[in-house]
Amino acid sequence: MKPSNYPSHECGVFGVYGHPQAALLTSYGLFALQHRGQESAGIISHDGDGSPFHLFKGMGLVSQLFQEQDLAKLTGPYAIGHVRYSTTGSSTLLNAQPLSATTAHGQIAIAHNGNLINAEALRAELIQKGALFQATSDSEIILQLLAKPPSNKESSVSMESLQQLEGAFSLIIIGEKEMVGLRDPHGFRPLSLGKLDDAWVISSETCAFDLIGATFVRDVEPGEAVFISAAGVRSEFPFQKKKEAFCIFEYVYFARPDSNLRKKNVSQARIRMGQELARLHPVEADCVIPVPDSGIYAALGFAEELKIPYQAAFVRNHYVGRTFIQPTQLIRDFNVRVKLNLVPEAIQGKRVVIVDDSVVRGTTARTRIVNLRKAGAKEVHLRISCPPHRHPCYYGIDFPDPKELIANQYSLEEMKAYLNVDSIGYLDIPGMVRATECDEQSFCLACFTGKYPTPQQT
Amino acid sequence: MKPSNYPSHECGVFGVYGHPQAALLTSYGLFALQHRGQESAGIISHDGDGSPFHLFKGMGLVSQLFQEQDLAKLTGPYAIGHVRYSTTGSSTLLNAQPLSATTAHGQIAIAHNGNLINAEALRAELIQKGALFQATSDSEIILQLLAKPPSNKESSVSMESLQQLEGAFSLIIIGEKEMVGLRDPHGFRPLSLGKLDDAWVISSETCAFDLIGATFVRDVEPGEAVFISAAGVRSEFPFQKKKEAFCIFEYVYFARPDSNLRKKNVSQARIRMGQELARLHPVEADCVIPVPDSGIYAALGFAEELKIPYQAAFVRNHYVGRTFIQPTQLIRDFNVRVKLNLVPEAIQGKRVVIVDDSVVRGTTARTRIVNLRKAGAKEVHLRISCPPHRHPCYYGIDFPDPKELIANQYSLEEMKAYLNVDSIGYLDIPGMVRATECDEQSFCLACFTGKYPTPQQT
Amino acid sequence: MKPSNYPSHECGVFGVYGHPQAALLTSYGLFALQHRGQESAGIISHDGDGSPFHLFKGMGLVSQLFQEQDLAKLTGPYAIGHVRYSTTGSSTLLNAQPLSATTAHGQIAIAHNGNLINAEALRAELIQKGALFQATSDSEIILQLLAKPPSNKESSVSMESLQQLEGAFSLIIIGEKEMVGLRDPHGFRPLSLGKLDDAWVISSETCAFDLIGATFVRDVEPGEAVFISAAGVRSEFPFQKKKEAFCIFEYVYFARPDSNLRKKNVSQARIRMGQELARLHPVEADCVIPVPDSGIYAALGFAEELKIPYQAAFVRNHYVGRTFIQPTQLIRDFNVRVKLNLVPEAIQGKRVVIVDDSVVRGTTARTRIVNLRKAGAKEVHLRISCPPHRHPCYYGIDFPDPKELIANQYSLEEMKAYLNVDSIGYLDIPGMVRATECDEQSFCLACFTGKYPTPQQT
Amino acid sequence: MKPSNYPSHECGVFGVYGHPQAALLTSYGLFALQHRGQESAGIISHDGDGSPFHLFKGMGLVSQLFQEQDLAKLTGPYAIGHVRYSTTGSSTLLNAQPLSATTAHGQIAIAHNGNLINAEALRAELIQKGALFQATSDSEIILQLLAKPPSNKESSVSMESLQQLEGAFSLIIIGEKEMVGLRDPHGFRPLSLGKLDDAWVISSETCAFDLIGATFVRDVEPGEAVFISAAGVRSEFPFQKKKEAFCIFEYVYFARPDSNLRKKNVSQARIRMGQELARLHPVEADCVIPVPDSGIYAALGFAEELKIPYQAAFVRNHYVGRTFIQPTQLIRDFNVRVKLNLVPEAIQGKRVVIVDDSVVRGTTARTRIVNLRKAGAKEVHLRISCPPHRHPCYYGIDFPDPKELIANQYSLEEMKAYLNVDSIGYLDIPGMVRATECDEQSFCLACFTGKYPTPQQT
Repeated sequence: MKPSNYPSHECGVFGVYGHPQAALLTSYGLFALQHRGQESAGIISHDGDGSPFHLFKGMGLVSQLFQEQDLAKLTGPYAIGHVRYSTTGSSTLLNAQPLSATTAHGQIAIAHNGNLINAEALRAELIQKGALFQATSDSEIILQLLAKPPSNKESSVSMESLQQLEGAFSLIIIGEKEMVGLRDPHGFRPLSLGKLDDAWVISSETCAFDLIGATFVRDVEPGEAVFISAAGVRSEFPFQKKKEAFCIFEYVYFARPDSNLRKKNVSQARIRMGQELARLHPVEADCVIPVPDSGIYAALGFAEELKIPYQAAFVRNHYVGRTFIQPTQLIRDFNVRVKLNLVPEAIQGKRVVIVDDSVVRGTTARTRIVNLRKAGAKEVHLRISCPPHRHPCYYGIDFPDPKELIANQYSLEEMKAYLNVDSIGYLDIPGMVRATECDEQSFCLACFTGKYPTPQQT
Repeated sequence: MKPSNYPSHECGVFGVYGHPQAALLTSYGLFALQHRGQESAGIISHDGDGSPFHLFKGMGLVSQLFQEQDLAKLTGPYAIGHVRYSTTGSSTLLNAQPLSATTAHGQIAIAHNGNLINAEALRAELIQKGALFQATSDSEIILQLLAKPPSNKESSVSMESLQQLEGAFSLIIIGEKEMVGLRDPHGFRPLSLGKLDDAWVISSETCAFDLIGATFVRDVEPGEAVFISAAGVRSEFPFQKKKEAFCIFEYVYFARPDSNLRKKNVSQARIRMGQELARLHPVEADCVIPVPDSGIYAALGFAEELKIPYQAAFVRNHYVGRTFIQPTQLIRDFNVRVKLNLVPEAIQGKRVVIVDDSVVRGTTARTRIVNLRKAGAKEVHLRISCPPHRHPCYYGIDFPDPKELIANQYSLEEMKAYLNVDSIGYLDIPGMVRATECDEQSFCLACFTGKYPTPQQT
Repeated sequence: MKPSNYPSHECGVFGVYGHPQAALLTSYGLFALQHRGQESAGIISHDGDGSPFHLFKGMGLVSQLFQEQDLAKLTGPYAIGHVRYSTTGSSTLLNAQPLSATTAHGQIAIAHNGNLINAEALRAELIQKGALFQATSDSEIILQLLAKPPSNKESSVSMESLQQLEGAFSLIIIGEKEMVGLRDPHGFRPLSLGKLDDAWVISSETCAFDLIGATFVRDVEPGEAVFISAAGVRSEFPFQKKKEAFCIFEYVYFARPDSNLRKKNVSQARIRMGQELARLHPVEADCVIPVPDSGIYAALGFAEELKIPYQAAFVRNHYVGRTFIQPTQLIRDFNVRVKLNLVPEAIQGKRVVIVDDSVVRGTTARTRIVNLRKAGAKEVHLRISCPPHRHPCYYGIDFPDPKELIANQYSLEEMKAYLNVDSIGYLDIPGMVRATECDEQSFCLACFTGKYPTPQQT
Repeated sequence: MKPSNYPSHECGVFGVYGHPQAALLTSYGLFALQHRGQESAGIISHDGDGSPFHLFKGMGLVSQLFQEQDLAKLTGPYAIGHVRYSTTGSSTLLNAQPLSATTAHGQIAIAHNGNLINAEALRAELIQKGALFQATSDSEIILQLLAKPPSNKESSVSMESLQQLEGAFSLIIIGEKEMVGLRDPHGFRPLSLGKLDDAWVISSETCAFDLIGATFVRDVEPGEAVFISAAGVRSEFPFQKKKEAFCIFEYVYFARPDSNLRKKNVSQARIRMGQELARLHPVEADCVIPVPDSGIYAALGFAEELKIPYQAAFVRNHYVGRTFIQPTQLIRDFNVRVKLNLVPEAIQGKRVVIVDDSVVRGTTARTRIVNLRKAGAKEVHLRISCPPHRHPCYYGIDFPDPKELIANQYSLEEMKAYLNVDSIGYLDIPGMVRATECDEQSFCLACFTGKYPTPQQT
């Protein structure tokens, strides 16, 4: 089966219920979640009195988008926000979130992280029934379903119609009377609940709680809908129970190192991945160097385990933005150099282990290794802190076409030759899972194994 | 009955069917229609091959909004555009048009001029049935209705559901296979059909045809839907026939003087209004001066009829924009002065007739007359080229609250005192109508008479 | 002699001495003078306590450039401002004015209207003595000269070094202790003194006084420097007396109709030009139409004199800006049409007189006449409210190369044929001068006669 | 003696001589030097044919400022560029560099890094002689001096007048025929010469050579002027020889870790500083954590020396920009948190060594230590990789007022209490110097010792 035509994307969501400066806090929360999406950002707030919701969204980074005068208009104690990942083709303000609408239940707004796998079918069905779609993201489907008149009238935000959703969705919904934090029954993407004074906060990752000084309360469970209203917090499990399938790549790469996923700190899990990797593929070497920033913790674990000195030999340019002048053919490998520069003095004449979190196409890795050789590395050993990626993700991570993945093009021996390394070693699944200190059964490992937790994809 | 909560607005619409540079032509067309709306502008184009429609819209003037790179992305031989009027409170990009959607009939987009009078009821009904509304303008209702599955399958753009619309709508609809120009059965707002080489064009006013060198073909009739497709032009009258009710204020003030409305040139009609006014309220005077630019033609007609010299004593500042520094209390009557400055030499010691197209609240007129007196006018006679405004418009023109209208606050004698004029004279309805050379029965005169062509408003 | 390499330009200058909101008033003054320059605008203000001057300048229109927060930083009771005309090649922020500097006399700033004719020589000489020039406008020369240590210490702004200047300069200079309004001894460009409460104001044109409610006091005389300081107003004539040579084209075209130049109202002078023209080149016709806006008053005078009805047959688009999409070859004569559209009904079957203030290259006039013919004009008679332009201006007006001027290319008969008119008539010099009610000897008529008031140009 | 009134600033300079894409390369060079100044950036290029220099500068980051169309206008094979540091009060486009001028030697432009100590005297003297200053930076003085007619005519860029300059200046000067790289005789700031194919490049730091693929040739020597022209490279020592005084803080903090200063790699020097610090102030601890990014290398050296595990416990937010919403009182210590978040799991129950490159006021350090304690650190030991800062820098680094420096307010014991650490240890001067592998006599250590290499400051 082919992946959906809908643009895949990682995203970040954040919500505040019951704080006088809800929108400002939300802007801070989105700022902490910026790594989950840099294409667009938006906030919707409301005053809780039935007056129209306030919306501000735009293309670009949170720190550049939200000016004081914009936030001043986002009044009210209730707010949700969203940051969106940049993928080719779908980069348009129409697809920026949160999305909002007036429905039979009053005004609602949603912020969605994840990817629906039955989006096309749902959309076609809704259109057939007379619905219209003003944008192209799958999130508008959720908005349409929420507009359906519910049979259960307890809450203005009805879970009933959402039962048709399949795939990945960590959602924050805000209605006129409540805010709902919701995870799909597989629990692909994270979502956590926190508290700041009397206000409740919901976030894709716990690092956003730290920034605003909120306390972590608990994760929203797979399949759980947490309703927050004036009456307090209420939990519901509106979906049929399914196998938990938390995305392990959130631990490996996606989440911020200072976040806790399912109560496990990400940086510490990555250090353990490095240690596992060292035990699985030990090597005699003079220094261990990470590909910053994502490889830092695994490299530290690897170095510590084998008692090899850790060296920060690659220096990152902190001013790399998204809008710089198009790299030209003028300078070879400009794109690789502009992000990281190598300190030859750190590795000259040495046997070097380079640790990265993943090798996707292999082109960037290859250039880095050429540079290491030129700078005088005696040996180069490549270590990867997860298994080889071989399969597409249907749940929101934007990998290249499987045919372009290096692990599908080369055997390990061929890869060694292609990358010009003295040895290569990937972490295996058991080691990666052990490093998370979670149960293997609780994970989605599909991009490594091809075994998808949802039946349609197998 | 109270006016609808929906923001009233005049707007301009333009469409091109079958020209390789449809979007560029549309930008020119909107530029010619800029006087109908300065708040926002937008264009949607498509390639005719089922690929997604191209959209660009934003807040501001056409000449500032559409840059070459934006137009370059609006490819395809089919395009519609919209300029929107600025009214307090609804000034948001979400309400900017054209609106577009994917529906059961494929992609559609609409550009709407006019105001629905049953918007609230329709919206409530649609919401009750599960529809959601992402913005606040009444035009989204039309989009929702067009999404309904049609019983008549001849065209992908179905007129069936639009039969529920009541009020004013001159619409351009673009579907994947055709463009439709449509006027409500009362024909409140203008809409004309033109031709440029092999392409068809539709415009709110004929002045846009002149700019692009298109030929006027004919007006779209009240209640008519003109379908333009590869098969040619086809006419349909999907609505129950109603009394024609063309807005006479389009002749008096709103339309551009170089446009023809129902084949009658606007500037010439205004000259005749001035002549009628001169015959109805003659005066002995030394000069006739218009309030530019809207009063120019009536003043010319007035002056000619009475053989009194015409003087351009008020000088307009052509750089008045919408974003200048807030007028302060520093300078008295700054807002009046900044638009028009008086040449005292033109009127010193003279008996002056000042001709304007309307007096709404009277505050600006009063200030102008103070200035005329200060500059040495011996007598000041005010002549207005239409009857007094006393009633709200439900069909798209944004008058102040009836209580604020000067004609509802003062008798003619009181008005003379308040404005400090030696005489005052309004054109009457028969004269105004005669000046248009059209049948009185074909007009909506409700803002003058309070007799509304739609039953609910009486 | 060739014209200087320096970019010629008309400009507008404005200054306020002693008002708590000097910068705001200056922004209004510049707004009223916007017709004198649309390329860039700037304001410099100071607090009068020796602290640094405040500067804000940028490219674009006054109403768009100066935002409230910018004006808030321009504190102090002393301010000068400048609007600059757009000419190809020199369009850069470096050349925007006012210019300011710290010199031996403390801080000074200048705003300059006019064109120096010995700029190249002065610049070379100053450079030879060690001066450096950071931009390319001739106005920086004035700044350099003002930096020279004066022998006369009475004022911190010394006139001594300015005696080297030749050509056109209406200047406002602001020092730490005074403001100076200065006109070159020929008095090419206007400059007037006004009063607003206790504050003094200086402006290129009197229309700016009207906008801010200031009273006209008197013109600055040719060769006069008006020093305004805490001690009051003091007059000086620092230059050798020269023949007065006021630019007559300020009356014909450049100044705003509501300004008074040398106490004569511009609009009234233009009306008299139309009357003179009518007497010089009468014609039997059915209507007189102006090329708006500059031809309006002459057309009114022409029509009145011959008792021919005046018609506003050309309709101007008020939204023509400077940044609209480049006109394409798509539409023939787009550039002509986009500014003015013709109302055929106004001239069909008629003998038409079209009145303009000047015909430069003739291309635009030709297109307009084609349109008149197409629209059904029976005869077309062209009347120009000044004599033919044949010679370059070295004093600040940017005419095309003499070889491109229509009057240098064609005889009157040829012109008639080229423009396809039934008759053509230019106002003569005596008539033009009479219309101004000023002495012929007081004018610069060089662009018509080739007789330059400064010896080098003959 | 008080520091100069002129704004102190670190900056970065870059130049290219003889490459067809000089301006593009310069933009890349500036991008690599962005850490030396984020306030403004600019490039001046020229075609080498006497035509006017091309200039583009603006406020903001290199990657945001320079768009393709801007660079396209910066034609020619010769270009220099500048990035400027943000200091309060001088933040204005007028002070942005490069500065350019037309002088007796033709056009010149300069890019200046450093701070003159006799700026006020020089400026006063130049003004007295009739010079004028259009901005407030000390760099304009250099431009004025270069405008002086030289007695030596060999080069169009004369060194003669520059002999009056005192203080810190690493300069790139570009004339119509040559480019000059120049360092003051003390050699306070770095400047290096490189080669890219046939082109010569000059840069503040060598990291810029790496990015564009240029080869390091040699450093410009203290007091040396390197003339690059069509005739090749020529060296001159125009200044009286002085004691070398290279800013040691460039090694400690300012330069990028991947740059080489005087052939010594910065990151390796910082590692050695950490080692020296470990030997000077050893401690028993469970982990060493850096304050990223500046403390990373010293922490690595410290950890390695004492065989204590290195932990990346502080996580940096890579999206911290300069324009984010003003931190509010809403969130305590927001400013500290927004840059770094702590991973409690990394330090809970541990004895922690925190390594930073400097402690200036101490307020940020104090907050970080509070957070470490809260997160469960058992002991906190603070180590600083340089001696305490006690004295102002007159040569271009912007320290706070000496009275605000923590080392001037507290004894070591008091500091321990104030910061709430278990121990505190600063690196001493001998150790810091040893770590650079350079001669102590070659350094300026004034900010630590108060002994200034220029006589006036002592």
